[in-house]
Amino acid sequence: MFKTGKEVRMACRGGRWQKPTSGLAFGYVQANLVILDKDWAWDFLVFTQRNPKPCPVLEVGDIGAYKTRFLANEADIRTDLPKYRIYEDGVLKEELDDISNLWSDNYVFFLLGCSFSFEQSLSEAGIELRHITENVNVPVYVTNIKCAGAGRFPDCPMVVSMRPLSTDNARKAAEITKKLPSVHGAPVHMGNPAEIGISDIDIPDFGERVTIKEGEIPVFWACGVTPQKAAMVAKPPLMITHAPGHMFVGDRKNNEYQI
Amino acid sequence: MFKTGKEVRMACRGGRWQKPTSGLAFGYVQANLVILDKDWAWDFLVFTQRNPKPCPVLEVGDIGAYKTRFLANEADIRTDLPKYRIYEDGVLKEELDDISNLWSDNYVFFLLGCSFSFEQSLSEAGIELRHITENVNVPVYVTNIKCAGAGRFPDCPMVVSMRPLSTDNARKAAEITKKLPSVHGAPVHMGNPAEIGISDIDIPDFGERVTIKEGEIPVFWACGVTPQKAAMVAKPPLMITHAPGHMFVGDRKNNEYQI
Repeated sequence: MFKTGKEVRMACRGGRWQKPTSGLAFGYVQANLVILDKDWAWDFLVFTQRNPKPCPVLEVGDIGAYKTRFLANEADIRTDLPKYRIYEDGVLKEELDDISNLWSDNYVFFLLGCSFSFEQSLSEAGIELRHITENVNVPVYVTNIKCAGAGRFPDCPMVVSMRPLSTDNARKAAEITKKLPSVHGAPVHMGNPAEIGISDIDIPDFGERVTIKEGEIPVFWACGVTPQKAAMVAKPPLMITHAPGHMFVGDRKNNEYQI
Repeated sequence: MFKTGKEVRMACRGGRWQKPTSGLAFGYVQANLVILDKDWAWDFLVFTQRNPKPCPVLEVGDIGAYKTRFLANEADIRTDLPKYRIYEDGVLKEELDDISNLWSDNYVFFLLGCSFSFEQSLSEAGIELRHITENVNVPVYVTNIKCAGAGRFPDCPMVVSMRPLSTDNARKAAEITKKLPSVHGAPVHMGNPAEIGISDIDIPDFGERVTIKEGEIPVFWACGVTPQKAAMVAKPPLMITHAPGHMFVGDRKNNEYQI
């Protein structure tokens, strides 16, 4: 299979890969994509600055630029992801695997850190990740933790992902992820889900439920779905994102993001 | 003397304090100020995103906003610093201690982390800071380390501050400051100044020389002067900053910034 980020991107660009990127090019950073018109880019960038845990920006393009400069050497953001989602006025319109025809010189791309990166660090430390063991999508919840709005992006609830861990592993996972602030950082909550407004841990808002074993506690991390939820409310005329799980894969390694 | 950030700000607002803020309101975060027209704010915010070590943004205002929301509860950025500098087309025009009359609804303020915060952590760990002992301004140098440009802000050299430390203290200081990424983070270099383009350590570009004792090495941190140097080249029609050493003092504590 693909050994590097570049191999994944070339396969996407050539139309040879249109599936999720989970598990591809082990060790290479994967990132969420958001594209907005320049008229909306300021509000969004300020929103990410105010909410760095759910919105850790790894790269912002210059206005009109579709080539990356930092996460990868000259990747083409219009072709190098396996699948894109097109939203108009906050509503999903279609999925495409190439957005070259849609590109405008007024567009700005944002690449945001993703939990795949910290999951690699947790796995390497011998911490079992239940959703991987059970082969489902990580459970994701809307909480009552408030994110600060910016311009047309409103104050909005933080979205979190959850991984059940023993208290020992929870402590260890917190230590590891706090050194990774550019991929969501330390957990935002551990333990009682009700304290952050989650009424039933077995009914996630996105993804699927996972088994919480005797002696384990739920551990919650800020999730990159948060800014997309905010955008659904702000309703920019056009927003393009990666399709869920179909991420941008860079040339940089996850371990470069450890401070 | 002033015990809290609010006391400092009220004294500035009332015209009762127009001097540097070093040593005031111990434990409260101090920040660099940059104000630009909204037409220049995007380029500057992207510049800070690309260069987080010299430009750690603690708060960005909404367009036209002059009250803070995060670093302090409703501080007024136009009156609450002791002294401001006004630059036109990259050239220093004047110093003022109140900019209310200059304010425009098109202006955007940025507050950036400052080395005063990490120096507190180093002092608390028993690390002597030579420029404080010798009662001079910290020595600052222009290096050959490149910062990535953004829009009209060019690729430019990183500016660094230097503190001489024993190798033991240098290691300890690196450990402490890497946990403070929002106030410049870990050192960018230790040891031979020539490796980062500094030809004579005794002739700083700003600030004053300090004694480097037998067995000590120079330790270099990214410095908040960097974005001002970039702006001198980009020449925005108007830029307002704090006067050197005359910082914004917030309600938040330095220790809140430790990850």
